[in-house]
Amino acid sequence: MMAQPQQERSRTTRRRLVEAAVECLAEHGWSGTTVAVIAERAGVSRGAAQHHFPTREDLVVAAVVQVGEAQIEQLRGQVRKLPSGASRTEYVARMLLDLYTGPMFRAALHLWVAASTDATLLATLGPLEARVGREAHRVALELLGVDESEPGVRETVQATLDLARGLGLANLLSDDTRRRRRIARQWARMLEQALPVPGGNRSGVAFVSKTS
Amino acid sequence: MMAQPQQERSRTTRRRLVEAAVECLAEHGWSGTTVAVIAERAGVSRGAAQHHFPTREDLVVAAVVQVGEAQIEQLRGQVRKLPSGASRTEYVARMLLDLYTGPMFRAALHLWVAASTDATLLATLGPLEARVGREAHRVALELLGVDESEPGVRETVQATLDLARGLGLANLLSDDTRRRRRIARQWARMLEQALPVPGGNRSGVAFVSKTS
Repeated sequence: MMAQPQQERSRTTRRRLVEAAVECLAEHGWSGTTVAVIAERAGVSRGAAQHHFPTREDLVVAAVVQVGEAQIEQLRGQVRKLPSGASRTEYVARMLLDLYTGPMFRAALHLWVAASTDATLLATLGPLEARVGREAHRVALELLGVDESEPGVRETVQATLDLARGLGLANLLSDDTRRRRRIARQWARMLEQALPVPGGNRSGVAFVSKTS
Repeated sequence: MMAQPQQERSRTTRRRLVEAAVECLAEHGWSGTTVAVIAERAGVSRGAAQHHFPTREDLVVAAVVQVGEAQIEQLRGQVRKLPSGASRTEYVARMLLDLYTGPMFRAALHLWVAASTDATLLATLGPLEARVGREAHRVALELLGVDESEPGVRETVQATLDLARGLGLANLLSDDTRRRRRIARQWARMLEQALPVPGGNRSGVAFVSKTS
């Protein structure tokens, strides 16, 4: 009879821990993010935190991956609400190039940098991070309305997301919003040149691979 | 009479400390990079290290900035050796997109991430980092042989360097060289479309700003 409320409480506890972990990582970095600090921020006992996530690595990696996936899912929800026609590319370019400018990217960045000198953390983070990266790539294809079997499309979409991560980095030490807006405008024009046209209404240029 | 050798010894000591600081930061991260560890690696006494650089912040920031500037200077030296004609853009795209994939970027990344949660470090690093960024932008203009008074050129060159930093990030946790090569090839084609032609031999498209 008590199973449902118990499960619900458990889910709420997990959600609070995950959100607190991302905030804590974004604000204090890896060395300042301990299970005790996260549990206190989440209003959860340290024992309960360790019941859900045995180690700091488990908790923080799960947090960054879950929040990253939720953010991608949110983008996916916007595919049907996009404007049509010429303004679509600029709208999508701006959405994608803003993707890595919030607390979620800060948290992930602290974790990536920590993992680059910590083999245990890397072993946990690596495969999950690769999965989130593939999901981001798929949603970018959907938002841009392009098919990556066309030559050059995959690399153009990859470049878009790598550019977005570079812009996330540029936004780390100071607010880079205005510069990023101008880059997104130019980027939209470059995408219109580089990508085949969804629906075939515009005269985009599909680059043919000269060498493979 | 002894002034010259003394100055030389002093320069050698500084150079050793700077190189050791970058290596140490790239390998062990900010928290593992202390003056004592750097001095030992450089084969310099801790007292001598502190004579040249009073604090860890002074030493590590100077190191990352000096090595960053030296790397840009090295790129500048290659401007006259570039191939001419159609292969130039691909050659330059590859050079620029490889720029942030070595130990120097790893070191800088550790420092940027540490500075994002440390106001004292940020105050020292911020202005110097901005200067290195401007130098990278100037050398990219020279390598691409373009003039940023033309519309869209500045943003395209900025996007190139932000993409390069994003690719540096993608190379942090695993070797991303093959994917980066494919992106650089596509990037070269996009640059050829987006940039006005140096010397006017190719039919590049200069995008005219629709909105400002």
